[in-house]
Amino acid sequence: MKNVLLASTSTLFGEEYLAYLLPELSGFFAGVSEIVFIPFARPGGISHDDYTEKVREVFATIGIKVRGLHTFAEPETAIAEAEGFFTGGGNTFLLVQQLHDLKLMETLKQRVESGIPYLGTSAGSNIGGVNMKNTNDMPIVYPSDFTTMGLVPFNINAHYLDPDPTSTHNGETRETRIKEFHVFNDTPVVGLREGSWVSVKGKVVRTKGSKPSRIFLAGMAPYELESGSLLNF
Amino acid sequence: MKNVLLASTSTLFGEEYLAYLLPELSGFFAGVSEIVFIPFARPGGISHDDYTEKVREVFATIGIKVRGLHTFAEPETAIAEAEGFFTGGGNTFLLVQQLHDLKLMETLKQRVESGIPYLGTSAGSNIGGVNMKNTNDMPIVYPSDFTTMGLVPFNINAHYLDPDPTSTHNGETRETRIKEFHVFNDTPVVGLREGSWVSVKGKVVRTKGSKPSRIFLAGMAPYELESGSLLNF
Repeated sequence: MKNVLLASTSTLFGEEYLAYLLPELSGFFAGVSEIVFIPFARPGGISHDDYTEKVREVFATIGIKVRGLHTFAEPETAIAEAEGFFTGGGNTFLLVQQLHDLKLMETLKQRVESGIPYLGTSAGSNIGGVNMKNTNDMPIVYPSDFTTMGLVPFNINAHYLDPDPTSTHNGETRETRIKEFHVFNDTPVVGLREGSWVSVKGKVVRTKGSKPSRIFLAGMAPYELESGSLLNF
Repeated sequence: MKNVLLASTSTLFGEEYLAYLLPELSGFFAGVSEIVFIPFARPGGISHDDYTEKVREVFATIGIKVRGLHTFAEPETAIAEAEGFFTGGGNTFLLVQQLHDLKLMETLKQRVESGIPYLGTSAGSNIGGVNMKNTNDMPIVYPSDFTTMGLVPFNINAHYLDPDPTSTHNGETRETRIKEFHVFNDTPVVGLREGSWVSVKGKVVRTKGSKPSRIFLAGMAPYELESGSLLNF
């Protein structure tokens, strides 16, 4: 049974890395002794090793070992044999470029579709969508393709932010950007606020966490969806 | 003599479209009776016609006619014969995709290098840089190439925003994103705050406008540069 958790963010304001998700993760990774961590998104340019170490420390507190995908001589075999996956946040362009260049996107997708648990945060959640066209990240590298795993039949806008009514800035709001997306695409977009996540258990897809989500469908006014609701467009 | 004006934004808070730039534009387009407007970035999904009309109304106040590039049967010829150019803001991915797909990027670059005045705002300024890798926009379409005109030997981050010390949001700051860019690229980046622009007169490249700019060079701490300074890395 497909078992996927796609979180808006790894970290809530004033909290430790992954702290708000830890109560979920023991159950999510039940029976898993070691996960493969995909560090390719490199937030702030952190090294693969340092990023993996940060993740290792947190997962140690729930008794799960962590091994970085970059440490395997044959990453495709590592994915084929993994008991569980976590892809951390950072730059989505970089993450997607690496997964395509190393020919790992499809292998990863197949393993997750077969029931191996997959946790993503931020960029790691974006790649659970149909494509990466709703990332907020800067295009610092040129991926060979924007297509991602399509574990869910929609895209995620991570770190979703409501327009700030007090802003004096002329940059586009998140809502305007997603509206521009829907001029050229009809993929639904889930605006996932920090503290929320998408849960997939087999065919059941729900929003979860502390905030309602904002749903954008092509040609329709966006609307709010309470946490716990089915995502069924 | 190369004559280029690349502005961070078209519009300042509480002002009309292009209002703060109008005092510059009469002199900038001196002797020009008609410009070609490039509406491809389509902010908020606005049509090419509506976007061109909005621009036409403003330029009428300084006695300059406007024709949308989309209205020419042969856009390459239109570019080859134009007296001046304005590329408006919107989505940089869309703008770059269109210019590459229509094979117009190189023609436009050559005309501007030969001295035809070029005004850009926001996305229209991004394409004056070496490539579009420092846009803030959402990748709603997949361009065949991120390379842009390279009218200046650096990239522009339009609508540059300082980190908000009161923010409780975990999305990356602009500074973090540009730092991530410099892990993989060594092109200098000018963080251009709203109200500021880059002016090119022949070989003289300066920042202008109401705000200092923030300069990001690979491997160095970012620094502030007063308006009026030479951009000479």
